[in-house]
Amino acid sequence: MTDATTATGRVILVGGGPGDPGLLTVAGHDALAAADIVVTDRLGPVAALDEIAPQAEIVHVGKIPRGEFTPQERINELLVEHARAGRTVVRLKGGDGYLFGRGGEEWNHCVAAGVPVEAVPGVSSAFSVPALAGIPVTHRGLSQGVAVVSGHVSPDDPRSEVDWAALATSRLTIVILMGVATLGAIAEALVAAGLSPDTPAACIADGATPQQRSVRAPLSQIASAADEGGFAPPAITVVGDVVGSLDSPAPTSP
Amino acid sequence: MTDATTATGRVILVGGGPGDPGLLTVAGHDALAAADIVVTDRLGPVAALDEIAPQAEIVHVGKIPRGEFTPQERINELLVEHARAGRTVVRLKGGDGYLFGRGGEEWNHCVAAGVPVEAVPGVSSAFSVPALAGIPVTHRGLSQGVAVVSGHVSPDDPRSEVDWAALATSRLTIVILMGVATLGAIAEALVAAGLSPDTPAACIADGATPQQRSVRAPLSQIASAADEGGFAPPAITVVGDVVGSLDSPAPTSP
Repeated sequence: MTDATTATGRVILVGGGPGDPGLLTVAGHDALAAADIVVTDRLGPVAALDEIAPQAEIVHVGKIPRGEFTPQERINELLVEHARAGRTVVRLKGGDGYLFGRGGEEWNHCVAAGVPVEAVPGVSSAFSVPALAGIPVTHRGLSQGVAVVSGHVSPDDPRSEVDWAALATSRLTIVILMGVATLGAIAEALVAAGLSPDTPAACIADGATPQQRSVRAPLSQIASAADEGGFAPPAITVVGDVVGSLDSPAPTSP
Repeated sequence: MTDATTATGRVILVGGGPGDPGLLTVAGHDALAAADIVVTDRLGPVAALDEIAPQAEIVHVGKIPRGEFTPQERINELLVEHARAGRTVVRLKGGDGYLFGRGGEEWNHCVAAGVPVEAVPGVSSAFSVPALAGIPVTHRGLSQGVAVVSGHVSPDDPRSEVDWAALATSRLTIVILMGVATLGAIAEALVAAGLSPDTPAACIADGATPQQRSVRAPLSQIASAADEGGFAPPAITVVGDVVGSLDSPAPTSP
């Protein structure tokens, strides 16, 4: 072993779940307890880091929509630099790192740099935030599956690559992440493609945090309902008959 | 308080993750540690129950495909009966209880019976099993989203309600649960509807367990590849360009 080899640390990509520290995995918890440095967004169970990883240096690389953020390329470099300095680096992401978390890009960057990298899956916000608002993403007799898409680009934007028309006729539950600002246009596109304007929908903001709140309305009215409620990112929208499937939409645990 | 009220226990629906005890959530772990009785399938982190819930009575209600199982109605009754006897009942499911886990039905049964019920989301097998085989379900430039569907009914079966044609043209990553026996028919349906037979695909069996194994092949050959590998349920299939997106598909953690 050369000194250079001995000095190489590692990177662990940890899906931190939707926000509640109880929805972190046991393996994610253990990784944080072993971390020298934690590179994290504002999403995920950041509030609990003082307790879970008191020994670690915390580096915030938050990606606030339309606000300050650290470019992905710089995040990639940060991970490699600190690992090469011999440190155990935890990249803590909200939800699951591989669902719109760009974990694959960070993985590839570490591999290309010769830095050991592991991935610990997390509880996805796409399924857990609806659950915490009393909505199962599938329910027998109501839904044959679920599609999770990003709504960060409006359907009428030339950059849009989501086939909203296919989703409208797919009979799948539709979960939309990053789609509060575009919700009106998304609802219009789904209705124009044949989905009933009366389809039940719900929008949930700050899911799995003490600030969680949700609103339900028919698809044609969900955007104005969210707007009137002052809903801002991060929020998740669910469209489909599953929205009404539970007899009591009481809050769940943790 | 009457005696009857005092005696009422509660039900906690816990998503146990894909099988590795490290992928159980902290809240799920705590629920199991507090359980008087655990009602569980053969899926999920069952092997670790002796350690996590040594005080609890374990009731197996496994749903082995085409094998012995406890009918859903009886599971519902079991939960209520034990809670009414004053016990803390954990219903431990593989993956996430609300994605093809029929958690919503158990929730509704408890509510109708007046039994307190909570739900703890888990790490979904639909995203974590691909991750553990080196496949992110989305990757920038390759996938705008992901659809998760059940393959337990063949596309040519009159009972089939999944719109495979819509999926074929949706540009979404497709994750198929419970679809090993039907994989050949599913691949044919997708190709017939316009998805390229060369689309990368992977089939992963016994994900997140020490027996995990996977095979990759173009869509048109994935069924025969899985068949030759002796793949049996539970297995998960991923179809889409994300299958080839990581530079090194090395096993991940835990």
